[in-house]
This record gives sequence, C-alpha cells and structure tokens, in this order.
Amino acid sequence: MNAQSIVAATMAKLKDVGGVRQVFLVACGGSLVDMYPAKYFLDGEALALRNGIYTANEFVYAAPASLGENSVVIVCSHGGNTPESVAAAELALSRRATTITLTHNPLADLQRFGDHNIVYAWGNDTSVADNPMAIILGLCVEILQQSEGYAHYAAFERGVAKIDGVVVRARKQVAARTVRFAERYQHESLFYILSSGASYGHAYGFAICSLMEMQWLDAAPIHSGEFFHGPFEVTDRETPFILMMNQGRTRALDERALVFLEQYAEKVEVIDAKELGIGTLPPEVVEYFNPVLFYSVMCEYRAALAHIRQHPLETRRYMGQVAY
Amino acid sequence: MNAQSIVAATMAKLKDVGGVRQVFLVACGGSLVDMYPAKYFLDGEALALRNGIYTANEFVYAAPASLGENSVVIVCSHGGNTPESVAAAELALSRRATTITLTHNPLADLQRFGDHNIVYAWGNDTSVADNPMAIILGLCVEILQQSEGYAHYAAFERGVAKIDGVVVRARKQVAARTVRFAERYQHESLFYILSSGASYGHAYGFAICSLMEMQWLDAAPIHSGEFFHGPFEVTDRETPFILMMNQGRTRALDERALVFLEQYAEKVEVIDAKELGIGTLPPEVVEYFNPVLFYSVMCEYRAALAHIRQHPLETRRYMGQVAY
Repeated sequence: MNAQSIVAATMAKLKDVGGVRQVFLVACGGSLVDMYPAKYFLDGEALALRNGIYTANEFVYAAPASLGENSVVIVCSHGGNTPESVAAAELALSRRATTITLTHNPLADLQRFGDHNIVYAWGNDTSVADNPMAIILGLCVEILQQSEGYAHYAAFERGVAKIDGVVVRARKQVAARTVRFAERYQHESLFYILSSGASYGHAYGFAICSLMEMQWLDAAPIHSGEFFHGPFEVTDRETPFILMMNQGRTRALDERALVFLEQYAEKVEVIDAKELGIGTLPPEVVEYFNPVLFYSVMCEYRAALAHIRQHPLETRRYMGQVAY
Repeated sequence: MNAQSIVAATMAKLKDVGGVRQVFLVACGGSLVDMYPAKYFLDGEALALRNGIYTANEFVYAAPASLGENSVVIVCSHGGNTPESVAAAELALSRRATTITLTHNPLADLQRFGDHNIVYAWGNDTSVADNPMAIILGLCVEILQQSEGYAHYAAFERGVAKIDGVVVRARKQVAARTVRFAERYQHESLFYILSSGASYGHAYGFAICSLMEMQWLDAAPIHSGEFFHGPFEVTDRETPFILMMNQGRTRALDERALVFLEQYAEKVEVIDAKELGIGTLPPEVVEYFNPVLFYSVMCEYRAALAHIRQHPLETRRYMGQVAY
C-alpha cells in the first residue's frame, strides 16, 4: 500500500467517528530527525489538524490526553525493535489510534502494533523518495490533503518527482568539497550546526547522529533564528560552524547567520541548497525538500570525515554494546 | 488585568467567531525558553486546542496558515524591543489574532501591538509566580480552562501558591553545592545539559543563555529520552553533564540517564527536583512546575560559576555591541 491508499483507508475507517484530528510523530534519534520536516509542514500548512512530535519514551510516559481514536500515530524505527518505539506503537494501539509503522526490517517487532506497516528501502542507490524522511512527509501531505485539503498538493508531487535528480547532481557537486572539509576539520573536537525551517531537525540530526554517535565528537544544533539570542556569543575564529542554508521562506534567517559568521568566525562550512540546485522545485513547496537534500549531501561530508579520522561510521562503544 | 481576566476578555471577544483555536508562543532566546513549559502543558492536556512555539523570526518569515482571528499569540521580550518579537506581534495583529505581550519594560515597543500587555516583575526577590515562565504557563492554563476545561485547574492553582516556598528553600539548600560545583568545573569548556518533559526547554535555556551567552562556554541540551539514541556515545570520564531530574511522569527518563551516567561518566552534576522538595505540590500538576524550580536554582549555579571564572554574567562581545 502506498501513502495515498493507507491514508484513504484510514479516512474511510474514521469517517463516522469524526475523522483524523491529530497526527503524532513518534520515534527516537535518527528516526525522529526524519519526522521533523513533516512536523514543520503540518505546523505551517494545516488549518485544523493538530500534530505533535515526541521522542518515543516521552510519548510512552507522558502520552497526550488527546491520543485516541481520532489520532494517527506514525512510529518509525530503522531496526524496528527499539523498545521505546515498540512500546509507543503498543500504547497507540491500546488507545484505539490508527498506527502507521515504518522500518527497514521486514521482521520488525514494531509491526505487531501497526494498522499499516511500511518497510522502506535504504542505501545510496535508492530513490530518496523511498526513504523514511520523504515517506513520512508524504504521509502527512496525504493526511492534510484528504482531511482539509492542501492547495499545493500537485506542486508537492512535482517536487517529489524532481528531488532525486537534484540529490544525485548535488552529491557529485560536493565530492571534492567533502574531501577539503575533512582535511581542514579532521582535528576539530566540536561543531555547531545551524539551519532553520524544515531543516532544523536535520541540524539536530547531523549533530546527534553523524557527529556525536558516529564520530564521538561534541556537537550541537543551533536554529539560525535563535543564533542571535544567545548562542552567537561563543563565536570566534577557532570554533567550527556548519551552516545549511535553505531555499524558501526561512532563507533570510540563514543568510543573516552567514553574514555574521563571515565577519566573526573563520571556520565556516556552508552547504547551500540553492547553490546545489534545489531551486528547480516549485517555489510553493521547495522549503519542505531542503532537509531531504541536506541529508544526502551531509552523508558525503560525514563519510569523508570518518575516512580521514579513521573512525568508521559504524563504531559504537555503548549503543548495542552495553546494557542501558 | 490578571491572566484570568485577560483570557475572559479574549473569550468574550471571540465568542461569536468560533472561540480560541490556536495558541502561538513566540519569542527569542531566553524568553522562548520561558514558553516551553506552556507548550508542554498544552501538548499534553489539550483535547482540541492547537499550539505552536516559534523563534520569532521564523514566525515572521514562515507564519502558520492557521494564524488568524481564532488565534491567541503570546509574545515575550524581556527588554521589549527585540525587533523580531516586535515584528511578530505586528504580524499577529495584522492577521487579526489576539496578541498578549509580556515584557519587563513598561515603555516597550512591543506593547504597541498587544491587545493585552503584561509588564512583569523581575529579580531574586520577586515571587516566581510573577515571572514570565509562570505567567505564560498560567495564561495557557486559563485558555484551556475557559475553552475546553482543565480537570486539574484547582490543583494547578494550589501549585502556584506553593512553588515560591519550594524555590526559596531550594535556593538555600543548594548554596554550598553551587560553590563546590563552581570549584570543580571552573576550567571546563563544554557542558551537556540533560532533562525531559516540561524542563527540556530549560535544559536548552541553560545551555544557550547561561553558558553560551553569559559565559562564552560551549554547551548543548540533550533530551534525557534522546540521550540513548545517539548523544550518549560522547560520554566519557572527562565530559561534564548537568542532569535536571524532574518530579512527575517523565522522571523515569531522567533516572535512566542517571544510571548510565553514574556508570560511564565521572563529571555529573545532578539537580533533583524531588530531593529539592517539589513533591509537596499536587501530583497531577507537579511536572509543570519543575522548570520554574530549575530556573531559580540554576541561576545560583551560574552565578557561582561566573564568580569563580571572573566572567560577569552581563559581559557580551556581540549582543548589543556590534551590528547583526
């Protein structure tokens, strides 16, 4: 079943009880990161539909009072057996919510509690439209379209059709840059990651997954709009910043951060979605696709960094290694 | 006008057009931090009312489609002239939303765009119930109570009446600890701040305001639930962690982080709301008051750190010093 038919089936099921009123996006770590663009989309575009985004254990221990038969709960776990995420799906089911699960593991425990289970493709050769970030965004676009309507639905579909081409070209475009980046920053121990809009979640994701988890490096995300209200006081010529510049409504925030960093910082790596060609997507929807592009491009940056540091991306000291 | 009468006036005004449907919490930096408990409260307790929390410039550049006459927009700026916050209030007014402003400055520019303007008290000797964090939370409790009802409204009022006493005792209780903390950590350059639930916003706030802005130290917030899904891989015996443990539903998440940190970290400062006496508040509402306590207590920690480092809390190199 694709997103359209999953949502249609859900709408039909809930027709007589008041339809879908809440969408809850629930996951942990990297999978939670994949949900942020969908949250940003619903926050911005929905007129009546509510949404919430939760790290799974907070959803389990402090479930929202509104969780019930009018809720759709989307739960994602790459490996499919993250205990907190499985517990969240089980809780959602017990509250009579409609649960949609996403995992890369066709034998996932998580699927026991899904009304609909999506097993997604993964890897550099798959279309980004088949990865969880785009699938979850697509599900939320469908829910909005089939509940209250979404004026730019057709434009969004055109965006989905085009984003793969942009990503493929952008990955080639940054190949040499990622090597220079890795050479320049290989001995740094801390990075700040800036972005805004739909991509703020990926600033968080690059910090906690790519750098903290996979490289054991200190890192923190900073919202480009928040930068000037505290965080920028740490700026100096020694501190590295990675700025992911969006195309779309919040670009002005990223540009303001760039102007400041160009003046007061020295170690600044800019990844600019506009320069990487995302402007070919329809302007009404382009902002929602920035993080899809950034994810693929930043995988190249982290791979180059991992290579030069001789710290493989798979190395863990705690995750899956010790009890916690 | 107090919160109850401001909300009553708003309800009366919107009675014939469908009432309050959305609450938007809009501010920058430290004032945004003050809004997080209200967001967490509405996320958890509201059945129909929507909410959104925005750094002001993102609200201005990417305003939600739902912003309109059924919206209440709460805008807070301590100094009252933050350009992005003033612009956000102006935008809200232009969309016919009801705007409630909060500032410490009775001559604030912000007040030009408020339907209701609250000038709040500030300083160590004021009741915490008169500080913006508690006022904004109180406004949202009133909006919920007067729109769809809130089962624990009376318990919440009892919490407001009790929290000041808890804070006063807790500040004395930590006095010697803050000196030991400052002595032990005075030469550290980076801190991770962990918490969950209503207090996650204050983990963010302590990182970006107290440490990055006021001490020029590297810092990052980590949600206790997210810790195990990436961030914990940086844990070692050299990296400092500050863990703010909540009383209430998400305490289990903080306790899990503590167990891990006790085993694998060495530099761990625990601020435990339960041990500091917050348990005297009604259990149905206690979780919402944790960040009010943590704010006051953590001010003592940061003051001790500033003192020993001889870096006054007011020192800035960019904010208000250069153009940006």
